[in-house]
Amino acid sequence: LDFIDLLSLLVLVNIGNHFDLKASVFQAPRRGIYSFSFHVVKVYNRQTIQVNLMQNDFPVISAFAGDQDVTREAASNGVLLMVERDDRVYLKLERGTLMGGWKYSTFSGFLVFPL
Amino acid sequence: LDFIDLLSLLVLVNIGNHFDLKASVFQAPRRGIYSFSFHVVKVYNRQTIQVNLMQNDFPVISAFAGDQDVTREAASNGVLLMVERDDRVYLKLERGTLMGGWKYSTFSGFLVFPL
Amino acid sequence: LDFIDLLSLLVLVNIGNHFDLKASVFQAPRRGIYSFSFHVVKVYNRQTIQVNLMQNDFPVISAFAGDQDVTREAASNGVLLMVERDDRVYLKLERGTLMGGWKYSTFSGFLVFPL
Repeated sequence: LDFIDLLSLLVLVNIGNHFDLKASVFQAPRRGIYSFSFHVVKVYNRQTIQVNLMQNDFPVISAFAGDQDVTREAASNGVLLMVERDDRVYLKLERGTLMGGWKYSTFSGFLVFPL
Repeated sequence: LDFIDLLSLLVLVNIGNHFDLKASVFQAPRRGIYSFSFHVVKVYNRQTIQVNLMQNDFPVISAFAGDQDVTREAASNGVLLMVERDDRVYLKLERGTLMGGWKYSTFSGFLVFPL
Repeated sequence: LDFIDLLSLLVLVNIGNHFDLKASVFQAPRRGIYSFSFHVVKVYNRQTIQVNLMQNDFPVISAFAGDQDVTREAASNGVLLMVERDDRVYLKLERGTLMGGWKYSTFSGFLVFPL
């Protein structure tokens, strides 16, 4: 681990409480196995949402929130990913809309094992 | 990582299955970036609960469980946090009550990157 | 960390999107503290499910999904575990059935601190 890894960690730390989806693309500073997890909260919204964790242009895992009767519900998932240098990892709202924006949502990742 | 880091990890490990909220304050043995996650389960409870992850006296992230018709539902979230030495990180039940206590709830944290 | 740790990580990485439960038993290559998390998704299923994270033959933590009115819901939890060499860690569907199989479910683990 060195300074550039640290930078990428801090980027993810900063997006904790409220995050701008456009600013939340993680570009891997080095090859390795990373741990990613997300919790995307829908607020007062009767639509089902589907959130994909994307590696470059491919969906890796999905999460769903589809309850019509609750005010806040999270679509959550997490995974260990083998990532090449400069791969881009980000969240995509595949289905539904987030009327309340990304409030309370989090997206975190860190390097577990450099390769 | 040294013995004191290990101790703080073990404290968190021990609180896995059933935990005493008062005993679950994590006091950081050193400055660094830590990964924290929690799953708080409400049981037979029609109230909405809100759980905050607190750093010292400030809420960092929140999670909600508000379904009225299920017997068990979890309020879950997780985040990477920049923590100063001796910072206190803990869970706070901001809204609602846990009639069944903290059974099945978990709170985990570990040092990802020392600074 | 060495090659055998890496292998065990890759096993868990591979089970991300769709996984065969039988193939997802994690056998610890060394003593240490590991982080495990899972998200098990039930699809079009009105039964409550309970998923246990098992260490050898003992349940460590549980998660539940019991909403009758949503198409997809996840039973999620995570924990830091003290694991002896050759311990087996796996998921067990303690209650209910997964009609849609393990699609969208994930199970991840990695070594946080070798002992």
